[in-house]
Amino acid sequence: MTPVEMLAVAIREAEAGRASGGVPVGAALFGPDGDLWGSGHNRRVQDDDPTIHGETAAFRAAGRRRSYRGTTMVTTLSPCWYCSGLIRQFGITAVLIGESRTFTGAHDWLAAHGVAVTVLDDPGCVRMMTTFIAEHPDLWHEDIGR
Amino acid sequence: MTPVEMLAVAIREAEAGRASGGVPVGAALFGPDGDLWGSGHNRRVQDDDPTIHGETAAFRAAGRRRSYRGTTMVTTLSPCWYCSGLIRQFGITAVLIGESRTFTGAHDWLAAHGVAVTVLDDPGCVRMMTTFIAEHPDLWHEDIGR
Repeated sequence: MTPVEMLAVAIREAEAGRASGGVPVGAALFGPDGDLWGSGHNRRVQDDDPTIHGETAAFRAAGRRRSYRGTTMVTTLSPCWYCSGLIRQFGITAVLIGESRTFTGAHDWLAAHGVAVTVLDDPGCVRMMTTFIAEHPDLWHEDIGR
Repeated sequence: MTPVEMLAVAIREAEAGRASGGVPVGAALFGPDGDLWGSGHNRRVQDDDPTIHGETAAFRAAGRRRSYRGTTMVTTLSPCWYCSGLIRQFGITAVLIGESRTFTGAHDWLAAHGVAVTVLDDPGCVRMMTTFIAEHPDLWHEDIGR
């Protein structure tokens, strides 16, 4: 799969999150061979659960794993400290990010600690978050603890 | 509540986790007025869910909140990068830690970024983790991604 095809999986998750009234951030975790281990989206609204960001949803969907060496976390939005901490703790090798214009998390910190970070700067991802933040600023600020 | 009384809530959670065959790390989130918002324990084994550490379980149990200013996260063990990222992202004010001898997470990093960190160095917490790691080294290493 190309980076754009991998991002498309995360975007479909984000769109599903938006369609069900939630925060439109989606993610997917791919194994070392490029196979999809799991994907998911933010479920703060849907499950009343503040721990389920896109990245943690994808990580959960991937189930229990002995090692994350060689894996790639794909996410529509730059990962916050919470999700970046997850990536660092479990040794996820690469992070592929849809955009970091509407929110810049800790991806520079991840890169400084050896994670291979790529930001695709995808206009569709920017549009989706820009619209969401304009329509639901309170929900967005709640989700990132601001 | 005193720090020792607050830690006792987290220890009870850790003991419940151990009794149900899981990783014995427990945590509790207290509000600014000292009221218990939520508590929980690691559920990797019980739920087959690698996202549920003690701290994330307590955070989830506390439900959706608009602000974490003035809150205290109490945990039996020094928080890993994943849980430290959660604490930083959501602006949790203080962290009270049972012990950091058997595992040292990122609590120094939290302190360097303004979180009020206290390590109680509780012998009971040390004993609980020492026993667990000796009996289930594979499970422990899986839980921290090593």
